[in-house]
Amino acid sequence: MSSHLETAAANDSVRALQWSGEALRVLDQRKLPEAIEYVHCTTAQGVAQAIAGMRVRGAPAIGIAAAYGVVLAARERYRQDPGNWKDLIRHDLDILAAARPTAVNLFWALDRMCEVIRRVEGDPFAALLDAACTIYEADVVANRRMGQLGAELLHGADGVLTHCNTGSLATGGYGTALGVIRSGWKAGVKNIYATETRPWLQGARLTVWELDQDRIPATLIADSAAAYLMRKGVVQWVVVGADRIAANGDTANKIGTYSLAVNARHHGVRFMVVAPTSTIDWSAVSGDSIEIEERDQKELLGDYFLKEGHVIRAWNPVFDVTPAQLIDAIVTERGVVLNPDAKAMGVLQDR
Amino acid sequence: MSSHLETAAANDSVRALQWSGEALRVLDQRKLPEAIEYVHCTTAQGVAQAIAGMRVRGAPAIGIAAAYGVVLAARERYRQDPGNWKDLIRHDLDILAAARPTAVNLFWALDRMCEVIRRVEGDPFAALLDAACTIYEADVVANRRMGQLGAELLHGADGVLTHCNTGSLATGGYGTALGVIRSGWKAGVKNIYATETRPWLQGARLTVWELDQDRIPATLIADSAAAYLMRKGVVQWVVVGADRIAANGDTANKIGTYSLAVNARHHGVRFMVVAPTSTIDWSAVSGDSIEIEERDQKELLGDYFLKEGHVIRAWNPVFDVTPAQLIDAIVTERGVVLNPDAKAMGVLQDR
Repeated sequence: MSSHLETAAANDSVRALQWSGEALRVLDQRKLPEAIEYVHCTTAQGVAQAIAGMRVRGAPAIGIAAAYGVVLAARERYRQDPGNWKDLIRHDLDILAAARPTAVNLFWALDRMCEVIRRVEGDPFAALLDAACTIYEADVVANRRMGQLGAELLHGADGVLTHCNTGSLATGGYGTALGVIRSGWKAGVKNIYATETRPWLQGARLTVWELDQDRIPATLIADSAAAYLMRKGVVQWVVVGADRIAANGDTANKIGTYSLAVNARHHGVRFMVVAPTSTIDWSAVSGDSIEIEERDQKELLGDYFLKEGHVIRAWNPVFDVTPAQLIDAIVTERGVVLNPDAKAMGVLQDR
Repeated sequence: MSSHLETAAANDSVRALQWSGEALRVLDQRKLPEAIEYVHCTTAQGVAQAIAGMRVRGAPAIGIAAAYGVVLAARERYRQDPGNWKDLIRHDLDILAAARPTAVNLFWALDRMCEVIRRVEGDPFAALLDAACTIYEADVVANRRMGQLGAELLHGADGVLTHCNTGSLATGGYGTALGVIRSGWKAGVKNIYATETRPWLQGARLTVWELDQDRIPATLIADSAAAYLMRKGVVQWVVVGADRIAANGDTANKIGTYSLAVNARHHGVRFMVVAPTSTIDWSAVSGDSIEIEERDQKELLGDYFLKEGHVIRAWNPVFDVTPAQLIDAIVTERGVVLNPDAKAMGVLQDR
């Protein structure tokens, strides 16, 4: 597996999560691009805080971080009470699960780790660390595979537009949608556009920083300029990630994704979702049952209006749901689903 | 006319442009909402700088400010050379005309002032000041009329969404689209949403500030959240202003307007443009001939990327063009055009 990782690193120099042997080092994404600083998480609570505080973000990266959080929790709880640690760790699992509500990869990773907890005997550290590393490395391998599959769909395209950050910072490495764009760039896509992605500016701070690190030229636009960009005919595909995909292909992703999908359809621009199958929530029949996180209105509203006596509020949903009908392709590590619906998505579940 | 202005002031407490008798006081919109500071413009160049630097913005307000700029220029040039001031002032008119390229009201106001310059004899100050005041006051009267006409269209609507700032700050007073929303609110529209309007945040800094000043409750959203808002069914109309309207109804307005129009059509939400007839450029057959201003990439791109050696750029168009086919109504002081096209627009020209 190491050869895969080395190949990936050739056009992908960023690693947001690093296991030090003792702690999880988390690249503090709130400080990019001005400063490259790492937070050292030594407890599950520390990991949960890094997730809730958006030092680490992106559905796959959240899942990976949570897996290492379980490793840290198990080490502590086993030291505390070797005979009863499996009861004690439940509290830590709850804290990790509550860190972000929408990213289903978080629950998927915790389920994987719980399976190991159930069957492990004696000191659980090595087995859980191995499981976390496997989740991490498999994510990078999956991203490389999706990069290849997605780039084949981009064949012949001059320009692509992406939204939010779905790159090495949001995953184990290489990225989902940004991995496809990396692969597409190597295969000849010339014009890469990134939305700035308000209110958190993941595009303006993270996506263009990652591309800049790898010397891939890109152009930043305001979120609201995407429709005009499409009308000019310079992009043939919109390529985005996903925070949760329902069984019928409806996709929850960063707020603004839905607007891009509506505009893409209007302009004859194609729309691609790139995500590992761990992002699919088979229990969600459609997007209607996906809970959408709303964050603090402070992210939009200036301090002036937050004082008492003002009549202005903000509505700050972090995600929206794009109906499968507006999606041309869902690219996963298991393969591509064109024109997704409940039936077409089934092939990803059965394999 | 003063009774009109007093009535308007009842729900409209802001005046961005004030003639002091000696100078034009311009409310510095770059400092709102944190600070209320005025710039005193005593020369045409000072007015042009206030326009180019976006201390004053909004197509009608730019026209009014330019008219007072001509008053200031005439005072100076007549003092300088009473026999030759009409030649000398050409330079000032050029400077004012170059301040912003897209707002046609700027050229309209300068044309009006030039007519007065042509026929005036002796000291031009009183005649030009009278012409500027007439432009100013007629704008407020026009806005009150558009407010009434637009509010009639909103009848039965619970919620509206607006973009950018089109209120008292962008006009002589009361506002165009925001004037319609003021009138609609008095008539029963309950839920007013405003986009923050990147990159300049005219919505987040100016529109909600104006509404707050007048105790009209409103909710701020990220530009990219508009589609999800429409899908939730809480707004029945999008109401926006215009920087330039072509003879066929195609409308140039703040970047993002076009995306809202595409989304409105997709969701069955109606789309209203509100602007005085001075915003119509009868020489532009369609939106294709409207020049779109692009501003500095610094407005989008962080300092980090602006240093040498980076491969990231930004594309920063200030306006986009919404085709008339996506517009349900254009509301002017001369009346409403439903389903605008070249033929329907003609009624506004002939009266």
